[in-house]
Amino acid sequence: MPNIDAPDPGFESRVRASFNNQKVMQAIGARLVAVGSGEARIELPFRPELTQQHGYIHAGIIGTIVDSACGYAAYTLMPADSEVLTVEYKVNFLAPARGEKFVAIGRVIKPGRTLTACAGEVWAYVQSEAKQVAAMQSTMMMVFKSG
Amino acid sequence: MPNIDAPDPGFESRVRASFNNQKVMQAIGARLVAVGSGEARIELPFRPELTQQHGYIHAGIIGTIVDSACGYAAYTLMPADSEVLTVEYKVNFLAPARGEKFVAIGRVIKPGRTLTACAGEVWAYVQSEAKQVAAMQSTMMMVFKSG
Amino acid sequence: MPNIDAPDPGFESRVRASFNNQKVMQAIGARLVAVGSGEARIELPFRPELTQQHGYIHAGIIGTIVDSACGYAAYTLMPADSEVLTVEYKVNFLAPARGEKFVAIGRVIKPGRTLTACAGEVWAYVQSEAKQVAAMQSTMMMVFKSG
Amino acid sequence: MPNIDAPDPGFESRVRASFNNQKVMQAIGARLVAVGSGEARIELPFRPELTQQHGYIHAGIIGTIVDSACGYAAYTLMPADSEVLTVEYKVNFLAPARGEKFVAIGRVIKPGRTLTACAGEVWAYVQSEAKQVAAMQSTMMMVFKSG
Repeated sequence: MPNIDAPDPGFESRVRASFNNQKVMQAIGARLVAVGSGEARIELPFRPELTQQHGYIHAGIIGTIVDSACGYAAYTLMPADSEVLTVEYKVNFLAPARGEKFVAIGRVIKPGRTLTACAGEVWAYVQSEAKQVAAMQSTMMMVFKSG
Repeated sequence: MPNIDAPDPGFESRVRASFNNQKVMQAIGARLVAVGSGEARIELPFRPELTQQHGYIHAGIIGTIVDSACGYAAYTLMPADSEVLTVEYKVNFLAPARGEKFVAIGRVIKPGRTLTACAGEVWAYVQSEAKQVAAMQSTMMMVFKSG
Repeated sequence: MPNIDAPDPGFESRVRASFNNQKVMQAIGARLVAVGSGEARIELPFRPELTQQHGYIHAGIIGTIVDSACGYAAYTLMPADSEVLTVEYKVNFLAPARGEKFVAIGRVIKPGRTLTACAGEVWAYVQSEAKQVAAMQSTMMMVFKSG
Repeated sequence: MPNIDAPDPGFESRVRASFNNQKVMQAIGARLVAVGSGEARIELPFRPELTQQHGYIHAGIIGTIVDSACGYAAYTLMPADSEVLTVEYKVNFLAPARGEKFVAIGRVIKPGRTLTACAGEVWAYVQSEAKQVAAMQSTMMMVFKSG
């Protein structure tokens, strides 16, 4: 990632406020653990109710946290009066999502006026060892607040 | 989709048993409403705790139900002693996921010995009108049960 | 695809003029064989110089014709003074691209003011039998002509 | 990328021989400029006959070189008697492909017995300045030689 300056110096509180409005994040137990210019990290502790048929975290839940991480990475670089929407994402699942906690990292790879391209990773932690379980490539869109 | 014969005549109960083991489906309130040869449908009623910052269902939850619909569509065509894993998926979000209920349809577009390509759709219902909110293209993998 | 009206009645000649400016289409021997509202078809006869190491058409060339088919499908629905750009695409390869000719079909699945989502297919013909070899899902962008 | 050991010490000559059999690479003027364990680089000088309607290299040609770069990155880590196939790829186009030459870099992000996940980049050079124009995420498959 090139070192990218956020045009809105208040991006962190704006991102945190939006994250706090994502009710699904509280419902699954995810927390926004870091926000930087062009980057965001979300942490999800393991919960049995988020699992698929083999007892691992469902691919869609892994997709959910890394989609939000990418969306907020993009949102850090957007203007104060904007909102962010996911246009599309693609995830490759590299290993079963088995672990005590999962960390999704979203990073801007190319900011743009309207569209921002992002890359995401999800790492699973077993004790203190980390293993990458997913890779995302996505497109986010900036829209102006409507009111 | 070509008309595809499932090699295992007991595919429906096998798929339903696996779905019932996906704890996340119960956690979000999703139900498997139809299973056919090469096809599966999952229904999700709206719930406030699944929303993102604008009050719509989070893109990742939409991805979760259509990933499972595609996975189970593929699983209908796999042998009795197999398991299904998601290799990768890609989702385009066509409209905000606003509605009373959401129906994800997964279909096999090309079955294979190891890999199965699937297409998925998610439709949002407002009263009885339906609108497509997402399109998925994905790859599923067959693995033999380990034991 | 919903039946979509093209806002510019002159869309076909506009699309054909743009296609004729894609020098790569002539270089590989591809022809635009049909243009309709929200749809375009491109045909590519087999040529040995387009093959990969096993003698089939290279995945990237298959991607090239279906990207153009999707782009022109989207372009049929754009205004007269616009241009079309590919934001991103995803292709699944369903079978080796072996055949005498290849037909790429691009269709709009959701038109939008700025972004248009498309689906594409590529079919390989051996004698008169057709087999689907690729499926695409893509995002196209409308930009106004700059001058 | 983790430091990955190639199981076949003769991987470089195997990759180069396969590349030389990709007739399309010669047809477009692409050269394999570097091969390492889990990585490959392909260079393409600008040619007017590879352009789209605005005079830039066609998105599909950019996809072609980065697909091959990813495929050969994966192939470096496969056994001597294997072949490599593209299962699927996704490309985001970050900027118009304008430049004197284009360098596609493919890297393995997760090798596997059957499937290998790769990441790719394409950089455009104007004089000696480089700009990233595309990002790819893809799945490659190992198959044993059939004869």
